[in-house]
Amino acid sequence: MSSNHQNGAVLGTEFTQNVIDAMGPKTSPRLREVMAALIRHIHDFAREVQLTTDEWMAGVDMINEAGRMSNDKRNEGQLLCDVIGLESLVDDITFTAATNSTSGLTASAVLGPFWRQDTPRRENGATISFDTPPDGQVVYMHGKVTDVATGKPLQNASVDVWQASTNGLYEQQDAGQREHNLRGVFHTDAEGNYSFYCLRPTPYPVPMDGPAGKLLAMMDRQVFRPAHIHLMVLSSNEKEQVQHDGYKSLTTQIFDKECKYLGNDSVFAVKDELTVEFVPRKGDAKAPLELEYNITLAETS
Amino acid sequence: MSSNHQNGAVLGTEFTQNVIDAMGPKTSPRLREVMAALIRHIHDFAREVQLTTDEWMAGVDMINEAGRMSNDKRNEGQLLCDVIGLESLVDDITFTAATNSTSGLTASAVLGPFWRQDTPRRENGATISFDTPPDGQVVYMHGKVTDVATGKPLQNASVDVWQASTNGLYEQQDAGQREHNLRGVFHTDAEGNYSFYCLRPTPYPVPMDGPAGKLLAMMDRQVFRPAHIHLMVLSSNEKEQVQHDGYKSLTTQIFDKECKYLGNDSVFAVKDELTVEFVPRKGDAKAPLELEYNITLAETS
Repeated sequence: MSSNHQNGAVLGTEFTQNVIDAMGPKTSPRLREVMAALIRHIHDFAREVQLTTDEWMAGVDMINEAGRMSNDKRNEGQLLCDVIGLESLVDDITFTAATNSTSGLTASAVLGPFWRQDTPRRENGATISFDTPPDGQVVYMHGKVTDVATGKPLQNASVDVWQASTNGLYEQQDAGQREHNLRGVFHTDAEGNYSFYCLRPTPYPVPMDGPAGKLLAMMDRQVFRPAHIHLMVLSSNEKEQVQHDGYKSLTTQIFDKECKYLGNDSVFAVKDELTVEFVPRKGDAKAPLELEYNITLAETS
Repeated sequence: MSSNHQNGAVLGTEFTQNVIDAMGPKTSPRLREVMAALIRHIHDFAREVQLTTDEWMAGVDMINEAGRMSNDKRNEGQLLCDVIGLESLVDDITFTAATNSTSGLTASAVLGPFWRQDTPRRENGATISFDTPPDGQVVYMHGKVTDVATGKPLQNASVDVWQASTNGLYEQQDAGQREHNLRGVFHTDAEGNYSFYCLRPTPYPVPMDGPAGKLLAMMDRQVFRPAHIHLMVLSSNEKEQVQHDGYKSLTTQIFDKECKYLGNDSVFAVKDELTVEFVPRKGDAKAPLELEYNITLAETS
């Protein structure tokens, strides 16, 4: 399939089709579909902007640098995708495909790079803030996990929560926080309720010392993530041998309605239905603020 | 610009436009053009194939792994682009844009990752093969560098040549070859002629131990590059203080017409006009084969 183009002719769609057609018969149908579309769009992009070798090589350098900076504590490849909205988009596509679209269903948002698999289980009503900073505002957060279609409470659903401290750092990024600070896994009770003490979240900038930060600077973009709390909610609780099979797990973030960066999240994760309001709490010496947040799960489609 | 999408609605073109519009006023016009098109095409790709989070994360892992494996001796980010034809495409776009399209102009091909900036100058008629392997066939290669429009010979043009040995390795990949083996820079004489001894090139596989190799395997693709010799030709010779200003430098590869991989180069660099024929050479004890290859350069547009 050597190209038959003439001198001076830019390689066109025939060249692109040749690249796609080079895939062999043992390629899986899904990989063939994904790679064919990727090759077509990347080639169309290069032709559309008449991408030069120097510009392309700058992109290659950026990708290689992202890989070199990535480790178990940061993921620059992911962050590069995040700042162009790609993680939010694939999250939305994936969540939509996995659930029967239902009014009232809690929306998803991106996982981000700071979730940990080994977060300890804590009892309802416990705190996740063990190194509460002087500028931290403690919040009593609680709510109910229910089946979106029937309203039935889901017992023993696990609510995995994680957040940054007021310095903008998650515990694995910050030697000043003890391990597993500001994270915990809670199990809902017989009425589907969970509860814990956490911090009112505060905005923080994405890391600016890597290629994603450099790209943001080149794009003259604001770099802060609006104040948010991460949640991952699973209906099954394997430790307790109680299963709510057939519910789609939810990964999401809830955003402080009053945060000034709500309208220009640097990773485009905000959805209107995920904004929340922290209200004053009376009669609790441990927390001046309260947040009730109810979560609905849908059966998988 | 928080999205107003409803639960279950896949983020659409309004979301994509929001991401593009987040670029600030200090973005350079060219970066804005390139990033806007990249964001649009990447989002369209994700929506078109309904890319899932797991699939996207497999891509992120691949990119991070490419960066981790890249160093001054290999460039996996570049190789990932090469196997989907992107380097060939941007090379063609760039070369075409920089030259007045002229009949008879020597075509360009991709640089690849093995060129070295510090290759020594050698005298015309010298060899570049210092560790000739038993299965190597020596070739006397020679030709003339001329102005494509006038036919005028270009004196003191530099002809930078590099090739792999018969084991498929370039000298910087191979402890068994001395430094700068199978590479050299030659300067054309008053008639524009260059000459040297080299090896008849042999096909070799792209490295299969990194993400580009894994991607090729997943795509069920053949992994060999057809037998080729790399050339970089510059009209100016800074060491000699002789300049032929205004000529576009040429980076190209010439391919053995008889190589069985000519039709399915794993990086899509072959162009019909870059295929050459090695012919028997008589009366030269040093080389059983000969290749005459004349090169034309064009003034920059």
